[in-house]
Amino acid sequence: MTITITAFDRSPDGGRGLSRDTRVRWALEETDQPYEVRLVTFKALKESGHLAVNPFGQIPTYEEGDLALFETGAIVLHIAQQHSGLLPADGNARARAIAWMFAAVNSVEPPILEFANAKLLESDRPWNDERMPIVMERVRGRLRQLSVRLGVAEWLDGAFSAGDLMMVSVLLRIRTSGLLDEFRNLADYVARGEARPAYKRAFAAQLAINTRA
Amino acid sequence: MTITITAFDRSPDGGRGLSRDTRVRWALEETDQPYEVRLVTFKALKESGHLAVNPFGQIPTYEEGDLALFETGAIVLHIAQQHSGLLPADGNARARAIAWMFAAVNSVEPPILEFANAKLLESDRPWNDERMPIVMERVRGRLRQLSVRLGVAEWLDGAFSAGDLMMVSVLLRIRTSGLLDEFRNLADYVARGEARPAYKRAFAAQLAINTRA
Repeated sequence: MTITITAFDRSPDGGRGLSRDTRVRWALEETDQPYEVRLVTFKALKESGHLAVNPFGQIPTYEEGDLALFETGAIVLHIAQQHSGLLPADGNARARAIAWMFAAVNSVEPPILEFANAKLLESDRPWNDERMPIVMERVRGRLRQLSVRLGVAEWLDGAFSAGDLMMVSVLLRIRTSGLLDEFRNLADYVARGEARPAYKRAFAAQLAINTRA
Repeated sequence: MTITITAFDRSPDGGRGLSRDTRVRWALEETDQPYEVRLVTFKALKESGHLAVNPFGQIPTYEEGDLALFETGAIVLHIAQQHSGLLPADGNARARAIAWMFAAVNSVEPPILEFANAKLLESDRPWNDERMPIVMERVRGRLRQLSVRLGVAEWLDGAFSAGDLMMVSVLLRIRTSGLLDEFRNLADYVARGEARPAYKRAFAAQLAINTRA
């Protein structure tokens, strides 16, 4: 069955790879699954056809035969459970890899989303100069804990897994802020993720769409 | 093997059931699994013994034989995959239920966490009166979309699942704000969750700890 995902017709990041379809593309590349992409305009995101698959009006979605899924984390987990390459075979190690997926989206990403909101939605507000350092310190708090746990390890728990795929993707969001570079081992960890051939293919595929004529 | 979870020695909510151990207790009750609880003080959360299991210094954790897990979503998913009662048997329906778990923690909970931060950490800041309506409107945006999707259905996708368990738990965080009551069907949905015998047992168990002499 053909796998079809959705992506922005034009990503707001202009092809820097931060739109969430990159996470799903990366998972499909790691597991050697061919896929097709349906591009969606901002207007179409809020229309009934797309909302039927993703009630929050976001990309990506994932369709394969009778299955229609939304939520990046769930899509990556589904791919990882269906195909080898992203989860260890041992049951306990598998549960721990999935824990890192949830840690990425529910412990590390929320303060990063708050930071993104402050930058994108509140930059013209009178409080933003004074508030921004507070928001950045919340992000740092999580990065500090993650940095301690990672230590000198290559990946979060043994071999590269869907947990690393999600964590690297979340951390990529703050690279231009300088926050990531305050934690050398986390910056190196993200660089290792970006150096994977599967990530490079995923990045190139979204870049081609966002830089087409 | 004995299941042992951790919970606050004294929950900051005084037993209102909003600490995340309630979500795990609820999953264990829905699947009829006996469990033990190890209470952790705020000081011990930041000590090496606890950080070895949860690098972010939070509760709950889950231990069973050789397996030690953190992240509430991952723990609930592990319980749901090991025991019947929280995920449908059909593969596609199961993937969709897991999508709702991720939707709860990565689409609905982040604006609620931002709202909680504004209330708990920024209430004495000069910008809070002007900023709070903006933050609340972000929460409303998600609730509106969720309300449209739920419609007149009892649960999010067919029978009650781990997706509903997580979504109801996330929505419970904003009940006292009045935001939930702006969406009648969501308030009713949460009330259906609370009316489940398994939820009542989970709530009573955490209340007993938090109101003991």
